[in-house]
Amino acid sequence: MTDITMIDAAAARLKGHARRTPMLSSPFLDDLAGRRVLVKAECLQHTGSFKFRGAWNAVSALEPAGVIAFSSGNHAQGVALAARIKGISAVIIMPSDAPAIKIANTRDLGAEVVLYDRATEDRDALGARLAAERGLTLIKPFDMPEVIAGQGTCGLEIAEQAADEGVHEADVLVCCGGGGLTSGIALALEARAPGLRVRPAEPEGFDDVARSLASGTVQRNASLSGSICDAIITPQPGDLTWPILRRLCGPGAVVSEEQALKAMALAHDRLKLVLEPGGAVALAAALFLPQTGDAVIAVATGGNVDRAMMVRALGQ
Amino acid sequence: MTDITMIDAAAARLKGHARRTPMLSSPFLDDLAGRRVLVKAECLQHTGSFKFRGAWNAVSALEPAGVIAFSSGNHAQGVALAARIKGISAVIIMPSDAPAIKIANTRDLGAEVVLYDRATEDRDALGARLAAERGLTLIKPFDMPEVIAGQGTCGLEIAEQAADEGVHEADVLVCCGGGGLTSGIALALEARAPGLRVRPAEPEGFDDVARSLASGTVQRNASLSGSICDAIITPQPGDLTWPILRRLCGPGAVVSEEQALKAMALAHDRLKLVLEPGGAVALAAALFLPQTGDAVIAVATGGNVDRAMMVRALGQ
Repeated sequence: MTDITMIDAAAARLKGHARRTPMLSSPFLDDLAGRRVLVKAECLQHTGSFKFRGAWNAVSALEPAGVIAFSSGNHAQGVALAARIKGISAVIIMPSDAPAIKIANTRDLGAEVVLYDRATEDRDALGARLAAERGLTLIKPFDMPEVIAGQGTCGLEIAEQAADEGVHEADVLVCCGGGGLTSGIALALEARAPGLRVRPAEPEGFDDVARSLASGTVQRNASLSGSICDAIITPQPGDLTWPILRRLCGPGAVVSEEQALKAMALAHDRLKLVLEPGGAVALAAALFLPQTGDAVIAVATGGNVDRAMMVRALGQ
Repeated sequence: MTDITMIDAAAARLKGHARRTPMLSSPFLDDLAGRRVLVKAECLQHTGSFKFRGAWNAVSALEPAGVIAFSSGNHAQGVALAARIKGISAVIIMPSDAPAIKIANTRDLGAEVVLYDRATEDRDALGARLAAERGLTLIKPFDMPEVIAGQGTCGLEIAEQAADEGVHEADVLVCCGGGGLTSGIALALEARAPGLRVRPAEPEGFDDVARSLASGTVQRNASLSGSICDAIITPQPGDLTWPILRRLCGPGAVVSEEQALKAMALAHDRLKLVLEPGGAVALAAALFLPQTGDAVIAVATGGNVDRAMMVRALGQ
């Protein structure tokens, strides 16, 4: 099980390799939200999302001869870059409807990309088969202790940066798919900033974590495609992440696609950050849903967006 | 005259108030340029450009009862926010063709905005008259020792961040208007990283600094309007900045508007940064003009861009 000791060990492995991303703010967003809004800019991490943290920690801790991963794109890029820096091979299994830029970027980072149909094929079975055939180590996108620990390093930084800003009591909204980043941050904050409470943020119609937290039992999404927030669409909370989410996180925050697009436009205007829809749902929740307290923290988890989608957001 | 002692004093004043902006990079940009490309992300500074540095230093050092400034927008926002934090009044004289977002933002930051016609009115005379009438201290956009020293703090950070990246010999391309940031960075690097050489970057048709450096005498721009790079269009190098530019900087780098727009699109795709055209000319020079050495540093000076201009850039 991932714990704070594993997260501290991950932080040591990431030092000098992952970026310490900035905590940004804007008086305009503060005015809009009616409270201080602090934005952890993980879109500025290597490969444009937090995923490099977990990938680098897993590859560094396990020292595999080669790796395989399945991902809608951000985990893929994180694993591909980590493998490239380590000088090992990487096979990435991606859904055929992933944004073109994510597929292209993963290939350009030196990985072999294998496409599958998200609606009809079982990516876990495909990944297991390829891993066995080629002797590769599977780096799971969230349900893996080393990955959760790597993502948890983001929480260590949030604890320090919030304290630097004088914020000791606040909700921390985190864009949530399978829950690797959310649970990792929650473990880090439990140990280092217990006044900060983690709330998973999701898009409407794909709110498995919010419904799971509300009911106390694991809930599944009815569909796995059709959302512009593709980066954070997963079937259900993970076997390893769910107990952490249930113990430490909630309630969930659910925003519309329109709200996610508006948050993208405001991040463009006010923070000078490029966010993808799935990376903007936490900021959308901070800005557009009822919140409490003097301050709210939103983790902007990724910025790998097609130009056409950004143009759409800027038209809001 | 501004010197390294004044820049160090400015850094002490800015500590805890201005952001230490990150130095970013992307393997995709490295591949495109054929060398390492390090990008100093000053668009992430408060108010979306480096201008807050000089404004905060001037307001902190001079302790005025109220301030007045003239600016196409970025200096305006920097002065307005610095005055708001200090609790003093601010009058900002802006050209009537400045981007709407810059005028609106300056007003929203609590300043009184006075518009003038860039082609027919003398902003210096207007500023001097209003300053005298109302007892305000003029905070010049570049030709003022305290402002140059404040902008120079960006150079102190570049010296440290380049060393952290193992870069000790490189050209530093800086988007250049009147030369406040460029000369401030050059003074800081002369003292702290003498292997880093500053090269001003400008748009075609408004390359007064490049022509001044090439000829050894101050050259003027033929026109002061009609560029999408409005943030860095000034009549000629400043009286205080020119001797520093001549001694320490050059040769100038001149890019087309199309290259600036392409750099904006690449900053969007690869760095997850929003840049305005005038804030992207240094990156454009780093990516699209012949360069030498293993690494090049580009200062991304501002991100206050209208949505329509970003949409235009993303269509490139």
